[in-house]
Amino acid sequence: MTATIPTALATARELVDPELRKAVSRLDPDLRRVSEYHFGWVNADGVPEVRQGKALRPALVLLSARAGGGAHDQVLPVAAAVELVHNFSLLHDDLMDGDQERRHRPTAWKVFGRSSALLAGDALLGLATETVLETSSPQVIDAARALTSTIGKLITGQSADLNFEQRMDVTLDECLRMVEGKTGALLGCAASIGALFVSAPAETVARLHAFGTELGMAFQLVDDLLGLWGDPEVTGKPVLSDLRARKQSLPVVHALDSGTAAGRRLRELYSQAQPLEERQLREAAEMVQRAGSHEWAQVECERRFTTAHQHLELAGCDTATEGLTELADFIVRRQW
Amino acid sequence: MTATIPTALATARELVDPELRKAVSRLDPDLRRVSEYHFGWVNADGVPEVRQGKALRPALVLLSARAGGGAHDQVLPVAAAVELVHNFSLLHDDLMDGDQERRHRPTAWKVFGRSSALLAGDALLGLATETVLETSSPQVIDAARALTSTIGKLITGQSADLNFEQRMDVTLDECLRMVEGKTGALLGCAASIGALFVSAPAETVARLHAFGTELGMAFQLVDDLLGLWGDPEVTGKPVLSDLRARKQSLPVVHALDSGTAAGRRLRELYSQAQPLEERQLREAAEMVQRAGSHEWAQVECERRFTTAHQHLELAGCDTATEGLTELADFIVRRQW
Repeated sequence: MTATIPTALATARELVDPELRKAVSRLDPDLRRVSEYHFGWVNADGVPEVRQGKALRPALVLLSARAGGGAHDQVLPVAAAVELVHNFSLLHDDLMDGDQERRHRPTAWKVFGRSSALLAGDALLGLATETVLETSSPQVIDAARALTSTIGKLITGQSADLNFEQRMDVTLDECLRMVEGKTGALLGCAASIGALFVSAPAETVARLHAFGTELGMAFQLVDDLLGLWGDPEVTGKPVLSDLRARKQSLPVVHALDSGTAAGRRLRELYSQAQPLEERQLREAAEMVQRAGSHEWAQVECERRFTTAHQHLELAGCDTATEGLTELADFIVRRQW
Repeated sequence: MTATIPTALATARELVDPELRKAVSRLDPDLRRVSEYHFGWVNADGVPEVRQGKALRPALVLLSARAGGGAHDQVLPVAAAVELVHNFSLLHDDLMDGDQERRHRPTAWKVFGRSSALLAGDALLGLATETVLETSSPQVIDAARALTSTIGKLITGQSADLNFEQRMDVTLDECLRMVEGKTGALLGCAASIGALFVSAPAETVARLHAFGTELGMAFQLVDDLLGLWGDPEVTGKPVLSDLRARKQSLPVVHALDSGTAAGRRLRELYSQAQPLEERQLREAAEMVQRAGSHEWAQVECERRFTTAHQHLELAGCDTATEGLTELADFIVRRQW
């Protein structure tokens, strides 16, 4: 099933895009070009294009401000900052992971070289903090602290991910913590920093943070399920691509760590020196199923989603609950 | 002539080192190890070592606080933050430039791989801002802004440096701006952020910033002169190493941009496809001399040094002038 696209995403794009472009326009021409390509605003030759990310995180920031009793326009720079952090991490992760494609185009490092992509990532990270610090609000320090602490968690998550590449004994707990850093932390930040910035009570901010974090976990589980069993026509990725890349996604680690015969067989396949053949890929997927990990991931995703909603209810922000609920539904119900 | 080592450097090491180690200890074990190796605190196997950087920037921060009427211990986290930014840039620059050695040891990326060094650089950058934001001072926002704006200048400088690698028509002005970003900006920040943090008057802060920036320019010119004519026994680098790497240092760009016959010959040598032979290296050095660029660099270095001192005098900070003068002399008089 495909959910309808929430209006909050279109609104966020419309309102935050100018802020983002303003921030990026402060870079020197070389880094600006890499960044504008990465954001999908221009093609590799610098010619303007219309391609855009989902603006999920900016939408969360705007709704978070409304949830905290504020207005969208108070937090536009903060929303831009969160999106800058997200894109810093994408630029650097693509480099580290050697990923060749993002959003159906060659990654920035493939087009502009490793050094330029690395430096553009640094530049976006610097701009993110700068953008928040330039705002004038009694909460500017707290917001900047929330952002830098989130950056630390993102980096720790990516470090764990790199570490896992060398290992075949990653536990499910370790993997969950890694995902909490890589995906949960920034969604938690996005869902709460708007409220923080407009001086919402600490309890509301904490609940919104927990809402975003749990939503992030559900989001990643959906991604992992799509990476294993998603329809290639819908996801745009080849079937079983995550297994082909021997990605240690949550369902895979659940299976490997399950102590079952299926888990052991999956480990054998993942440990094999040669690339996995089609037959072996299908077997690996079958082993994830048999280890109960497909079902676990679905149940865990629902559980996280439900917990997210509970936090949202307890946050008690009437003004934005509907928008946040719609956005959460969209994130978790997309494409399967 | 070799100057005696100023006490300010030893003091800075003693006082700021614990702060730096505290900041780095917050990283996860993998990134911590890369960072501790990079700082020279451990060897590649994680065994503690005693090797240390010059602590030049932390020393400037401490003296800057005294110049602003404050005390060392008020700005220790700020001094650590500036050193973290410096080391972020070293980690990433080594990666981008493909440098294999730093401080007579293999660079971090050679030992731990590109991804780990990249991520450790990100982590130090994140820690730098976090460390400043965690302080409690009425000036915390201004200090954090000063730091992030400096980070932006560093990145712009490195971007220009990357850009120059593709070009043989870099003008002296462009090259001076690049050095102002890569070296001047952080020394300007180090020399003023301490005073800023202890609430010195804006005029004092601005003068100290100008002092540090000019000092940084002089510092780079010394480096460039040493890279061309330094005694290999003293510098630890092979003779004419900068020419061998076809580095577009300030004296080289001055020669290339001089419109002289010597400059044109140097351009021919620099444009040659094959590595330069010993004979050609000596000729290239001769051309830099003949274009008047050795002399220019020496005069320019003295001029920047004198201007730095003028700014320092006009800053009118009796308490730290002696220490800053001693440090400036040490930086510029070292090893030639």
